[in-house]
Amino acid sequence: MYRTHTCGALRAENIGEKITLAGWIQRSRDLGGMTFIDLRDRYGVTQLAFNMEVNAALCEQARKLGREFVVQITGLVIERASKNKNIPTGEIEIQVEELIVLNSSKTPPFTIEDETDGGEELRAQFRYLDLRRNPVQQKLLLRNKVSIETRKYLDAQNFIDVETPYLIKSTPEGARDFVVPSRMNEGEFYALPQSPQTFKQLLMVSGFDRYYQIVKCFRDEDLRADRQPEFTQIDCEMAFVEQEDVLQTFEGLVKHLFSTIRGTEFEGNFPRMSYADAMKKYGSDKPDIRFGMEFVYLDEVAKGKGFQVFDSAETIIAINAEDCSEYTRKQLDALTDWVKRPQIGAKGLIYVKCNPDGSYKSSVDKFFNQEDLKAWADAAGANPGDLLLVLSGDLETTRKQMNELRLHMGNELGLRNPNVFKPLWVLDFPLLEWDEESGRWHAMHHPFTSPKPEDVHLIDSEPGKVRANAYDLAMNGVELGGGSIRIHDRQLQARMFDLLGFTKEEAQAQFGFLMNAFEYGAPPHGGLAFGLDRLVATMGGSESIRDYIAFPKNNRGRDVMIDAPAPLNKEQLDELSLKVELTKEEK
Amino acid sequence: MYRTHTCGALRAENIGEKITLAGWIQRSRDLGGMTFIDLRDRYGVTQLAFNMEVNAALCEQARKLGREFVVQITGLVIERASKNKNIPTGEIEIQVEELIVLNSSKTPPFTIEDETDGGEELRAQFRYLDLRRNPVQQKLLLRNKVSIETRKYLDAQNFIDVETPYLIKSTPEGARDFVVPSRMNEGEFYALPQSPQTFKQLLMVSGFDRYYQIVKCFRDEDLRADRQPEFTQIDCEMAFVEQEDVLQTFEGLVKHLFSTIRGTEFEGNFPRMSYADAMKKYGSDKPDIRFGMEFVYLDEVAKGKGFQVFDSAETIIAINAEDCSEYTRKQLDALTDWVKRPQIGAKGLIYVKCNPDGSYKSSVDKFFNQEDLKAWADAAGANPGDLLLVLSGDLETTRKQMNELRLHMGNELGLRNPNVFKPLWVLDFPLLEWDEESGRWHAMHHPFTSPKPEDVHLIDSEPGKVRANAYDLAMNGVELGGGSIRIHDRQLQARMFDLLGFTKEEAQAQFGFLMNAFEYGAPPHGGLAFGLDRLVATMGGSESIRDYIAFPKNNRGRDVMIDAPAPLNKEQLDELSLKVELTKEEK
Repeated sequence: MYRTHTCGALRAENIGEKITLAGWIQRSRDLGGMTFIDLRDRYGVTQLAFNMEVNAALCEQARKLGREFVVQITGLVIERASKNKNIPTGEIEIQVEELIVLNSSKTPPFTIEDETDGGEELRAQFRYLDLRRNPVQQKLLLRNKVSIETRKYLDAQNFIDVETPYLIKSTPEGARDFVVPSRMNEGEFYALPQSPQTFKQLLMVSGFDRYYQIVKCFRDEDLRADRQPEFTQIDCEMAFVEQEDVLQTFEGLVKHLFSTIRGTEFEGNFPRMSYADAMKKYGSDKPDIRFGMEFVYLDEVAKGKGFQVFDSAETIIAINAEDCSEYTRKQLDALTDWVKRPQIGAKGLIYVKCNPDGSYKSSVDKFFNQEDLKAWADAAGANPGDLLLVLSGDLETTRKQMNELRLHMGNELGLRNPNVFKPLWVLDFPLLEWDEESGRWHAMHHPFTSPKPEDVHLIDSEPGKVRANAYDLAMNGVELGGGSIRIHDRQLQARMFDLLGFTKEEAQAQFGFLMNAFEYGAPPHGGLAFGLDRLVATMGGSESIRDYIAFPKNNRGRDVMIDAPAPLNKEQLDELSLKVELTKEEK
Repeated sequence: MYRTHTCGALRAENIGEKITLAGWIQRSRDLGGMTFIDLRDRYGVTQLAFNMEVNAALCEQARKLGREFVVQITGLVIERASKNKNIPTGEIEIQVEELIVLNSSKTPPFTIEDETDGGEELRAQFRYLDLRRNPVQQKLLLRNKVSIETRKYLDAQNFIDVETPYLIKSTPEGARDFVVPSRMNEGEFYALPQSPQTFKQLLMVSGFDRYYQIVKCFRDEDLRADRQPEFTQIDCEMAFVEQEDVLQTFEGLVKHLFSTIRGTEFEGNFPRMSYADAMKKYGSDKPDIRFGMEFVYLDEVAKGKGFQVFDSAETIIAINAEDCSEYTRKQLDALTDWVKRPQIGAKGLIYVKCNPDGSYKSSVDKFFNQEDLKAWADAAGANPGDLLLVLSGDLETTRKQMNELRLHMGNELGLRNPNVFKPLWVLDFPLLEWDEESGRWHAMHHPFTSPKPEDVHLIDSEPGKVRANAYDLAMNGVELGGGSIRIHDRQLQARMFDLLGFTKEEAQAQFGFLMNAFEYGAPPHGGLAFGLDRLVATMGGSESIRDYIAFPKNNRGRDVMIDAPAPLNKEQLDELSLKVELTKEEK
């Protein structure tokens, strides 16, 4: 071992001991007669002292050490003259007697400090140096803790960690698979799992009763901000359970994680809301309920006054931004520009200032008088000093846009405190959603989700009205996880595939193994999967998952550090019986 | 919840309670007035009692239940008339009051019993039913325990679990990669990792100090028996360590696993042996030292007596099978046939019976007299009653063949008790091995392994003599894991790639990121990886890993249950800009 202690270990009680440390030069201060060096490792920082009078040669040597050099030193733990109460080792320093340079370092392309001067691309390229920075290390340490405590909790609840295969079969249904050509089975391909869904269900059929896995999943999607082609799930499944059992179990997990890792306690049960209510009140199936600003529907009070935009709209939705009536022209213009950006796509934004004096000022004063506007304010529960923001159009789009605007206002007004955590179970999702493009029903969660027994009778007549035994856990506007009670009956599963447009043959070819398994004593079962990246980022108070992943990919799905993906050589392609045919553009 | 208790939970102290259980029908016995059913789940078996006199209808219903039906029952815990001391629930039974069939079952294609009548292929196809059998469940439960205890130990030692990427870059060096075409980066491919080697080294450069991960790895090799295209490693790396630190740390892990899971304690340090000695004494770098039968070199005593086979051989090796002098002609012929099989490839086998009366009988009596044979027996330490088995030829081949024969004899003679565990560190591996086919040096472990400092001076003159800071942990003839102290110096790493036949450009293109990282303060580091599949199988006393994997692939790399790999449809191929060109044979 190159050290007797880590750089975070020594305290006043070690004074007088001869010790050896190894670590990185964080910084050095040359005070003429004395040189002080901060030596850093994962565990902390220890001050090294070199004295010209005691050992001039050693002191000279120390002065030549550059930042990020790796050194090993031996010396005596002594009391520090000016103590540093900000760090645990601040009472001592090391009077160095021996210094060995283990490795030198070029000047890093950006500073290895909490606040660095490196841009995003540069840090991605030198990810191994960015990972040396304390805030980034802390994020990965948090991830490690979440993973440990997750296992501890689930293990205590009799869940078994079972590894499912990564080389499976492609299913054209749903998102795109990453595929893997098989050399030994010419012309055939494996697929990387988008989730271990069917395997965990088979484990329930096998009687494993409670399964979990912290597992990489893969999805070949056009990457939006903050999506990764490979991501990690806490994947769980239970047999002999109903929805309530699953909710209780995983609410327990989330409480355990927050309690043990953040010291955050949640009182009582997590609140619950139906999907229909969430969409109505927040225009989102993962509402951020850290703040109010619920949707107010103005259809009754705002239609029929000759304002064509409203009269022709399917719906008119307002939110009330409290204490914002003093917003300037410039602020309101900025908001209008914001909702008109292509990502949001609203045609415009209407506002009503509820002036402190009780009067109203709106952008549609031409069409609505003070009484009209008072009716809006009353409907929205707005008080003098508040600001109403109004969008209109078709129901689905307007809800979506207003959801974005609401979250934006939440950010603007500081209502989304990253240290406040508001979980919410969203329940009663629709089983199916109609896809205009393909002209058929799609499974809202996946084809294995069971319908609510009381809605099964609607499956032939009004499939769109069938609710699923499905649930999501939202927190702070983020979907942490979701799941469902599954179908465990072959006939019902076959009917589901039928509804989703599978021919009998397609269903059998792709999922025959699962439907067959249902014929040999499949127990009722259900489960849930958390997105670990997102869970950890949320716990860390961050909206971006990228820093919570050791080696993330960029928006083009590239690892710029190792420069992957990359072309293969011809021998490799030949062995796989593959030919690349560039079609999109010549390179 | 469908139950108040599991089928393994109820005891005498529960008598009088009304409970609900759910599980599978293991078997039923109809005794006329009474019907008894064994209800099974993962936790155990509970006896259900149905009484014609108490409830004839219910009893009739129970009689119709087939094996593997899934039922839920409610009833009273009562004392059992004839107690079964073999199971923990044997003191009670359930007087059933209510019975609900949760799912029926077709007759399984093989019996769900500890000893099943199902053949290997059938069980693979219905893996979800094979997984229902208790011995198979126990193997996966053992795996779960090993994984939990591994994490516990490493976590306590400050190791951090960091997830490394699965979509990385292909490197033509070494075994074949599985590759993944990138749709977003046309004509380019990711590779699945054969191990997280370079990433864990980068984590050391980043200062993570101690890393571990239980991680899937992938290798596209022609599958030998008991190799899987995807396998799991316990992958570890440490900074600021020397070989001794790594050995101590992971010896500690193995001791912890055996102690907590099997109750097996190892006394003192694990024995150690150099690679050279292991090859000399056992012809294997992973010798099974549960039994002796060490190689004896007869060159001095057996050459020059006119027996052409020996005289022309590079070496003559014997092993002494104690108490086997009474082997019959038939047994000796069988052994000869065994070593002549193509898998072993020996030309013949020579034996010497050391008869109980002190005389010798050999298959080469024509060339060697009693005195000659006595000299052999003395060299081998053989006593009257023993049997010498002798092979000759070139050194490498003969050692290999004799290793196989030794293990075979160990099996024959019952010397390889699966409940005895003999670990052995094998040290001082050569850094390089000469590959005749490609006419160049190959890295014996991998290109990142450091040479022993005292051998570095040989690197230009006699590269084959350079020993590596590499180590393997063998147990019972199985390689459980291996690792090395790595190179952390850019120049030395570049020299290594040079030796291995990389051009400067190739080395930079493939591993430039790692060599660059070494220039920014890379600490000395080293690590080790265990093969989890093999470790668990060894702990389970089995030589085959397949049953310790929930969903294994067969020898063609196929998952016969889900029928993967499979052809892709044209749209998927087009999106990936790929064309399949069948070359090997038309399908």
